[in-house]
Amino acid sequence: MIQPNIPESAQPRVVIVGGGFGGINLAKQLKHAPVQVVLLDRNNYHLFQPLLYQVSTAGLEPDSIAFPLRGIFRKQKNLVFRMAEVTGIKATENILETGIGDIRYDYLVFATGSNTNFFGNKAIEENAIGMKSLIEAVQIRNYVVKQFEESLLLKNPEEIKPKLNFVMVGGGPTGVELAGAFAELRKYIMPKDYPDLPQSLMNVYLIEAGPKLLASFSEKTSERTLHALQELGVKVMVNTGVKEYDGHTITLSNGETIESQSLLWSAGVKGVPVNGLPQDILLPNGRILVNEFNQVKGYENVFAIGDIAQMTNDQRFPKGYPMVAQVAIQQGKNLAHNIRLILEKKPLKGFYYKDLGSMATIGRNRAVAEFANMRLNGYFAWIVWMIVHLMSLLGFRNKLVVFINWFYRYFTYERGTRIIIKRGAANIVKLRQTVGV
Amino acid sequence: MIQPNIPESAQPRVVIVGGGFGGINLAKQLKHAPVQVVLLDRNNYHLFQPLLYQVSTAGLEPDSIAFPLRGIFRKQKNLVFRMAEVTGIKATENILETGIGDIRYDYLVFATGSNTNFFGNKAIEENAIGMKSLIEAVQIRNYVVKQFEESLLLKNPEEIKPKLNFVMVGGGPTGVELAGAFAELRKYIMPKDYPDLPQSLMNVYLIEAGPKLLASFSEKTSERTLHALQELGVKVMVNTGVKEYDGHTITLSNGETIESQSLLWSAGVKGVPVNGLPQDILLPNGRILVNEFNQVKGYENVFAIGDIAQMTNDQRFPKGYPMVAQVAIQQGKNLAHNIRLILEKKPLKGFYYKDLGSMATIGRNRAVAEFANMRLNGYFAWIVWMIVHLMSLLGFRNKLVVFINWFYRYFTYERGTRIIIKRGAANIVKLRQTVGV
Repeated sequence: MIQPNIPESAQPRVVIVGGGFGGINLAKQLKHAPVQVVLLDRNNYHLFQPLLYQVSTAGLEPDSIAFPLRGIFRKQKNLVFRMAEVTGIKATENILETGIGDIRYDYLVFATGSNTNFFGNKAIEENAIGMKSLIEAVQIRNYVVKQFEESLLLKNPEEIKPKLNFVMVGGGPTGVELAGAFAELRKYIMPKDYPDLPQSLMNVYLIEAGPKLLASFSEKTSERTLHALQELGVKVMVNTGVKEYDGHTITLSNGETIESQSLLWSAGVKGVPVNGLPQDILLPNGRILVNEFNQVKGYENVFAIGDIAQMTNDQRFPKGYPMVAQVAIQQGKNLAHNIRLILEKKPLKGFYYKDLGSMATIGRNRAVAEFANMRLNGYFAWIVWMIVHLMSLLGFRNKLVVFINWFYRYFTYERGTRIIIKRGAANIVKLRQTVGV
Repeated sequence: MIQPNIPESAQPRVVIVGGGFGGINLAKQLKHAPVQVVLLDRNNYHLFQPLLYQVSTAGLEPDSIAFPLRGIFRKQKNLVFRMAEVTGIKATENILETGIGDIRYDYLVFATGSNTNFFGNKAIEENAIGMKSLIEAVQIRNYVVKQFEESLLLKNPEEIKPKLNFVMVGGGPTGVELAGAFAELRKYIMPKDYPDLPQSLMNVYLIEAGPKLLASFSEKTSERTLHALQELGVKVMVNTGVKEYDGHTITLSNGETIESQSLLWSAGVKGVPVNGLPQDILLPNGRILVNEFNQVKGYENVFAIGDIAQMTNDQRFPKGYPMVAQVAIQQGKNLAHNIRLILEKKPLKGFYYKDLGSMATIGRNRAVAEFANMRLNGYFAWIVWMIVHLMSLLGFRNKLVVFINWFYRYFTYERGTRIIIKRGAANIVKLRQTVGV
């Protein structure tokens, strides 16, 4: 019989749902607190999402940006990890319902992150590709390489173009980084791997509904980014929305159409809905309304942090904080502090977001970065971007492997992992069903 | 319309089916020959199969042992690569039928390798796991990690045991290396990642039908291997066959049973059948009978090399050469030489196999190796094993990444890639269908 099998402890139990940036930082900070931490995630790894776009463009192995949660918390004696999906909550009984059985909690924290937001457009949702999970990134990589292989089998340019038109929607950091990476595939890899395909048949589009790229950055940085992408050959369209997409033709808000079999959607994220949560605390954007202590509205001992939490009391961010890693990390740390204060029956400390700045890489030798008093651009920003991301990666092995891949790519202009891993063998059907892969 | 789109050349065309060890060595040796080489493979990468077992035991990333075929042959101007499956052959017209259309050839070479041989036992074939492809290895890794995660959710040891009984069938190098790797998972990883699971619940079995392990090695080496595996805690059974397996219970030839949900089958390989080849040239073991020039029986311009070819004129190997990389490599090189001789209308050179020796690693610091006049064992053999395998890996990046993974593992006793990559998102259904992943 399946059961969570979580050892009973005399100490109060903090159940954390989600092993993303928020969840793991909260859990780590509770290492020496007098609590039992139960960490749940549907996967057995922490995913370093900021580098996901490099997996999808064959620059990094999927394994280098995923770190096993058991590895992270091996030495944390007060933590129990279980792979589980949440199915509901019985708040009056302090019970969390999961796929592996009911789990009792004293304090419950939702840190479930966010998912691609298609803003209700079902046709786009069905045909576009989001990019929030490791398997999506691997499949994008497979798909893109396959588009090239299949293009070689076609003679008519009109048949080839839709295969090699790659359209990114959303001009935020993810869209910018993806567009830059695709433009580099076009510039450096395509002529070497597919010399028979004219480069002109491949086009990279970046479509943004608002008036500028990187909306959260300064005017100057947005402009620099635009120019850098254009120099790389990306067709940037601002003030342009996507109205429809049927898998073949993209219809834009200005009536124009683009033939494309690859629409990569990074135009928005929304909170990952937790099944069984009362509907009245969920906002239309999928987030959960919390107060300044990350307490979920109407609950004393239920919290939400990171992308899933909407905290609106900061006047700098009246619509809630941006859904970025830094907010999740800082909220995780603040909540750990507050849980200690609760146990000590002291007044809680409100969350204050310290904006450490943002950055986006555009391509080889080009990035933009903005910190409190600094605005970086070009080569230096690119070096800073690399150092910050390398240092943020968990684990020595991952740092080293990613570093080598970057180093190798820099000097060889190569992509190491442009292989298509596909199914075939019959005797793995059983495995597939069991593992759900 | 899909068509192979292979440029017409004035030079004779050599079509090679399969980018394994035989195929790529043949193709490389034809670099400066006055021929057009057309290389076909169902995948877009060359797989370094000798290290596949390390992918399945979470020691290496799948990408490190796969090398894009376009990368290998980028500088070979007389070569065209296409991803394609062979569907038939019209030998009278010198036409190869493939999924991407008909391809004309002047010389045709089958280098399609081998697949797991279940010797006709359908029940075992359905429930056991083979290990010849990258996706199988990745899925074994996912499956194994999942068995551990699920074991944590069970209280009854009788329910846990079948999940943690890992049974390898076949005492050749693959079986020995797999058993050693599983024993090390048990010894080094399990106590750290799953301290709540008693180590005694995990058992590694190695079952061999013949009287000794590593049948092709000397008596002394076989014995050393047996002892080394037993020291690691592997339960080795020789003179024992597997009669039945229903996914839960393994019935052995001596009537005993083992409860196990994981039967890894490396007890034999057979030639990968090429669709549409006349049945009379296929042997029951799936191989194609060839003469000493690797010419397929009854054909002047159709060849087979490597695992798929059965050449029986060498008195040292009356049943044909072993299905190992070295034979494929040497036959590929010899055939390249013979194709040149054919073009020059000179007499062909018969194939002579030079046995470079064999090796198998048993675990940390332990390997066995036998060369012409040398028999190595223990630490030194292990170092030699690592150097030979590193040097044989294609590409600088792969060498470096594998080296780092080994180095890291050696000093940390860790496995870097024990993550479960599973499906989930709904919007990748389309991708899955298209890519067939």
